[in-house]
Amino acid sequence: MNTFGHLFRVTTFGESHGPAIGCVIDGCPPGIAISAEEFAHDLDRRATGKTRHTSARREADEVEILSGVYEGVTTGTPIALLVRNTDQRSKDYSAIARQFRPGHADYAYWHKYGLRDPRGGGRSSARETTMRVAAAVIAKKWLAERHGVTVRGCMTHIGDVVPRGHDWSAVEDNPFFWPCAAQVPELESYMDALRKSGDSVGAKLVAVADGVPPGWGEPVYGKLDGELAAAMMSINAVKGVEIGDGFASVAQKGTQHRDVMTPGGFLSNHAGGVLGGISTGQQVVVSVAFKPTSSLRLAVEGVDVDGNVVDIVTTGRHDPCVGIRATPICEAMLALVLMDQALRHRAQCGDVGAVSPRIPG
Amino acid sequence: MNTFGHLFRVTTFGESHGPAIGCVIDGCPPGIAISAEEFAHDLDRRATGKTRHTSARREADEVEILSGVYEGVTTGTPIALLVRNTDQRSKDYSAIARQFRPGHADYAYWHKYGLRDPRGGGRSSARETTMRVAAAVIAKKWLAERHGVTVRGCMTHIGDVVPRGHDWSAVEDNPFFWPCAAQVPELESYMDALRKSGDSVGAKLVAVADGVPPGWGEPVYGKLDGELAAAMMSINAVKGVEIGDGFASVAQKGTQHRDVMTPGGFLSNHAGGVLGGISTGQQVVVSVAFKPTSSLRLAVEGVDVDGNVVDIVTTGRHDPCVGIRATPICEAMLALVLMDQALRHRAQCGDVGAVSPRIPG
Amino acid sequence: MNTFGHLFRVTTFGESHGPAIGCVIDGCPPGIAISAEEFAHDLDRRATGKTRHTSARREADEVEILSGVYEGVTTGTPIALLVRNTDQRSKDYSAIARQFRPGHADYAYWHKYGLRDPRGGGRSSARETTMRVAAAVIAKKWLAERHGVTVRGCMTHIGDVVPRGHDWSAVEDNPFFWPCAAQVPELESYMDALRKSGDSVGAKLVAVADGVPPGWGEPVYGKLDGELAAAMMSINAVKGVEIGDGFASVAQKGTQHRDVMTPGGFLSNHAGGVLGGISTGQQVVVSVAFKPTSSLRLAVEGVDVDGNVVDIVTTGRHDPCVGIRATPICEAMLALVLMDQALRHRAQCGDVGAVSPRIPG
Amino acid sequence: MNTFGHLFRVTTFGESHGPAIGCVIDGCPPGIAISAEEFAHDLDRRATGKTRHTSARREADEVEILSGVYEGVTTGTPIALLVRNTDQRSKDYSAIARQFRPGHADYAYWHKYGLRDPRGGGRSSARETTMRVAAAVIAKKWLAERHGVTVRGCMTHIGDVVPRGHDWSAVEDNPFFWPCAAQVPELESYMDALRKSGDSVGAKLVAVADGVPPGWGEPVYGKLDGELAAAMMSINAVKGVEIGDGFASVAQKGTQHRDVMTPGGFLSNHAGGVLGGISTGQQVVVSVAFKPTSSLRLAVEGVDVDGNVVDIVTTGRHDPCVGIRATPICEAMLALVLMDQALRHRAQCGDVGAVSPRIPG
Repeated sequence: MNTFGHLFRVTTFGESHGPAIGCVIDGCPPGIAISAEEFAHDLDRRATGKTRHTSARREADEVEILSGVYEGVTTGTPIALLVRNTDQRSKDYSAIARQFRPGHADYAYWHKYGLRDPRGGGRSSARETTMRVAAAVIAKKWLAERHGVTVRGCMTHIGDVVPRGHDWSAVEDNPFFWPCAAQVPELESYMDALRKSGDSVGAKLVAVADGVPPGWGEPVYGKLDGELAAAMMSINAVKGVEIGDGFASVAQKGTQHRDVMTPGGFLSNHAGGVLGGISTGQQVVVSVAFKPTSSLRLAVEGVDVDGNVVDIVTTGRHDPCVGIRATPICEAMLALVLMDQALRHRAQCGDVGAVSPRIPG
Repeated sequence: MNTFGHLFRVTTFGESHGPAIGCVIDGCPPGIAISAEEFAHDLDRRATGKTRHTSARREADEVEILSGVYEGVTTGTPIALLVRNTDQRSKDYSAIARQFRPGHADYAYWHKYGLRDPRGGGRSSARETTMRVAAAVIAKKWLAERHGVTVRGCMTHIGDVVPRGHDWSAVEDNPFFWPCAAQVPELESYMDALRKSGDSVGAKLVAVADGVPPGWGEPVYGKLDGELAAAMMSINAVKGVEIGDGFASVAQKGTQHRDVMTPGGFLSNHAGGVLGGISTGQQVVVSVAFKPTSSLRLAVEGVDVDGNVVDIVTTGRHDPCVGIRATPICEAMLALVLMDQALRHRAQCGDVGAVSPRIPG
Repeated sequence: MNTFGHLFRVTTFGESHGPAIGCVIDGCPPGIAISAEEFAHDLDRRATGKTRHTSARREADEVEILSGVYEGVTTGTPIALLVRNTDQRSKDYSAIARQFRPGHADYAYWHKYGLRDPRGGGRSSARETTMRVAAAVIAKKWLAERHGVTVRGCMTHIGDVVPRGHDWSAVEDNPFFWPCAAQVPELESYMDALRKSGDSVGAKLVAVADGVPPGWGEPVYGKLDGELAAAMMSINAVKGVEIGDGFASVAQKGTQHRDVMTPGGFLSNHAGGVLGGISTGQQVVVSVAFKPTSSLRLAVEGVDVDGNVVDIVTTGRHDPCVGIRATPICEAMLALVLMDQALRHRAQCGDVGAVSPRIPG
Repeated sequence: MNTFGHLFRVTTFGESHGPAIGCVIDGCPPGIAISAEEFAHDLDRRATGKTRHTSARREADEVEILSGVYEGVTTGTPIALLVRNTDQRSKDYSAIARQFRPGHADYAYWHKYGLRDPRGGGRSSARETTMRVAAAVIAKKWLAERHGVTVRGCMTHIGDVVPRGHDWSAVEDNPFFWPCAAQVPELESYMDALRKSGDSVGAKLVAVADGVPPGWGEPVYGKLDGELAAAMMSINAVKGVEIGDGFASVAQKGTQHRDVMTPGGFLSNHAGGVLGGISTGQQVVVSVAFKPTSSLRLAVEGVDVDGNVVDIVTTGRHDPCVGIRATPICEAMLALVLMDQALRHRAQCGDVGAVSPRIPG
């Protein structure tokens, strides 16, 4: 339930405003060089408070390696990573604890467990995704070193704004993971206006993996695309997942959609790098839809634990577009799925050399 | 890999043109009345050859119950179901066995396993979904009897055609699972023209569950929506999954999307019945995108196992729109997910009575 | 629950007197040559009715391969094996269905499931172990071909009779899997007298694997010895499991027990080939205790479903020593565990060449 | 691999001399009152250094609850427990890192992972069992409160010394978990002599559970006895496991072994409370054999990483009989298995009321 993956298994724990969050990575191959410092880059990309366009919480997010690493190298035993919650305040949650906020997990948790931890969303907070990003740092490293696989992502929609161009090199140079540098000032105005209005907006992003060899994926219930769908949908606020052309395939003809293979390479990639649930050697492409943040300072009618109507206003600062900082999270989930699939593939089929013919992606 | 579910576990086996297909259902509650005849209705809905609009294969699909049922009642031990492939022909597959068809799993299977079963697509054929539908017959029955949960589905796109109205009562009276009776003649012409052209088209459908109590779903890696995404994406030809408003959420504002709760009920269902990965008591709504069939009698360039260019023409009759008969399959996966979640929920939280307040869906 | 193994997964199904028993093997490496005939040898070794010393049931036990094998070679997809129960009689079970036999699973199944299948013990019959033996035929083949691992077993106690000598070559030449040929006539008299008396007796056997490389086993909850213990204890009538010296270790001194390593080899094998839950490269040795059969024609007091005292007499013929024909079953479980561990090991650690120094076993 | 249990899942992490050890408990029912202080009692029972008869390491073993508990009550989300290793010394391990100690996991770890953490045995140290004991504190509480199940254990052999009487009330009043108070002075002399000799000795203990209802256990590969065998065998130094009469069953007759049921109760418990892999309502009885400690200050020949012969002397203080302080560990594993089985049972079969007839244990 709180473990992701079958052979590269990541178990996360921790509540948003509890003492700490963390994870245990089990099944990691031995011999990967890793240090606590290497987690900083991706955690920082994910972190809130980076700019005025994401929420203000200052999380130090110092990763402590508790086990599984000896003399800077993974040993094959479980790797435990710990991040203390420095922002943990002794706030009074008694009021909020009795209210169910529309669009939040409050009511569902209440009915599931018969009680809930109201501190900052508790377990249902996106704070949990910190540990996915941390765990994926190790996965990314192994994938790159062992298989030459790289993973990256960028936004493709913020509300109804879409990129006018697509330049991967622009993505890391703006706070929106936006692939069109020229559009950034416009987006800043858009976000400022949105924040001022008190409202929020949805978003869409794409995550891609290059260098994935053909053959990864476990038919029929551990298919690469099936696992990706589960992985992405498990992220807070996600409402949709597409592989390759996704919903655009609905209106396509078969002659359009099928990707022609030639000895020189595939001529297109409508499939998004997956056929029959197995990678084809093409770029793996997954798109993800995020709903708009439900925590708004615009009041809304809700219900309390006694069944009474209450007026709910969410105080504190919240992202007006949660999808933005989800880019590193989606990359992380893509990496975790690929890592797990790689290990599962070699379990059954071994570290066999490439089968011929290998068609360029 | 070939097992679906955690506690209500369905393991399927069998190739399209092998001796038989079947499944083993493990973890089924004892005491459910079931007979071999009860599988016929849903298998028939899924079966090909029903009308001229789906492919011509005549599958008898007689289900034999091999175990787990005594005197017409499930005993709690594994239930094995078997369907012989009556359509199994001693055809010569030597030609096709050396070619990789664009848009098919051939090339990916070849690279995964180093060999492949070319008979009718082997394991990658949609024939496998027969057993999902069969297993779900038992799940549907338990869900209905024990929790009053019902599951149904209909098409919402065939290519670029969309329903002009939505009437659930029309769905079962036409070969397209189409919710608008008036449109059926038009669709028949559309499909006839498509078949004549030799091309195919994508599709989209929706599956819904009514009566799901709040509290089902296992955060954070066994969430109800995550499991649904995996379940749907594991079906042949699926390229996208949405929960509730799905990708439409991208352009929505937070004030639009969040579903207001009142003591008298939720005022909308943009969330599709899931918040924080847990059911809310509203209708569970999942939409699925299907790519157009890749098997076309229109020739396409491909590659063979020696790396040579070959011209590929798929003979035999194939569905020009595979999405259509996927309706019972998506219903089945929805039922299997809910059944599994119901058991997982009561494992951890027990068969507790409803917590207050319970808001109408 | 009815699946054994993590990566080489065997799911069995079927009741003793239902229509059929079978299994699905998932995760099997592709490329293993296998035919239906290859199952006959081990199934015959396990089969009842071979001699007058085991029960009289004549089971044909013809294995049908339903999937996962194409042109005589495993394809990597799930392998389903089916054995029809030819001995299935339309007997009247109404009397026995209302009684709980001492030493049997009747009462426990009744309380677990609220009902039970009384036909020949239903799911709790040792008939189920047929499919373990069948599945292990494939595992043994892969282990031998890929790693040079061989598995064998023999009896070490029948009641209080112990072998006077130990000669592996004698084991397959007598109906008792007994390693001392000279003792066989004596054992035959012993068993004849036992059968005549209507009573039964316990047994102990040892199963060993040669050629297991160092490094198999998954600490700390998937250790090789832990998995072996679970595997053996899951066999009907087993009451104890030992690795290496087992319970004899209790009275040993540390200086006695620890196996000295020299560059020329280990000087002893008290550990039974496992240290820290991982194979050492020595012979893997596991011993198993079987209780005496509980089905006796000597009457015993029991209870019926109404809570009344009843006199229970088991009719039909039953093994007076169930442990005897458990030899191939224990070998099978040993092979299944090793196969699974081999795949798990290479998932995490790869198909790495031998690390130095490698000490002879 | 490092996760125990299927529904009450305990993932442990940490090396003996790393920064910390800990665990994550996933699937714990909500609503169990628990505080950090409640772990102290059992951790203290397990702790080394309690008397001169166990090793001198002073571990503070303060448990910190990092997640999953809110206002003193479990919330249903993962519970992370952390224990810092206060005994962590910056010792020089370079010498020992190059030697393989006979009877230890060194050589096996080396071959499995290609490297190893030599600090105090690393992951293969019995230090890991601390977290099993901690996790079981929660399991024991739930079992007692919800089902009236209690768990306890005592020694039955220290080397060749056996109890002259059996008095449960004596067990907690001596450092040997010995059930015969009169024998304690004798045992102290025995242990003192043993320690002085530099040698060690094996041990055997029994763990029992009272109050287990009939019906727990998941045939055929998740049987109660199978899970117990795996659980016990996963403990460091264990070489054998018995259920009920265990190996004594070998020489028994069927008329002796089978436990007669009467409406007033079972007349014996040779089965140890398990039939067909399911609890019968009798006392669950499991016995465990421990090998003698391999770490001795008596020198032994061994091998180093270069394949040379080396003389190995283990310095530091070590338990001359590791089995003694395993009593709370075996109790813990028994409780963890029962907790998991209880949840698994109610998943499939629900919280059904007792089926009749219920025979006293």
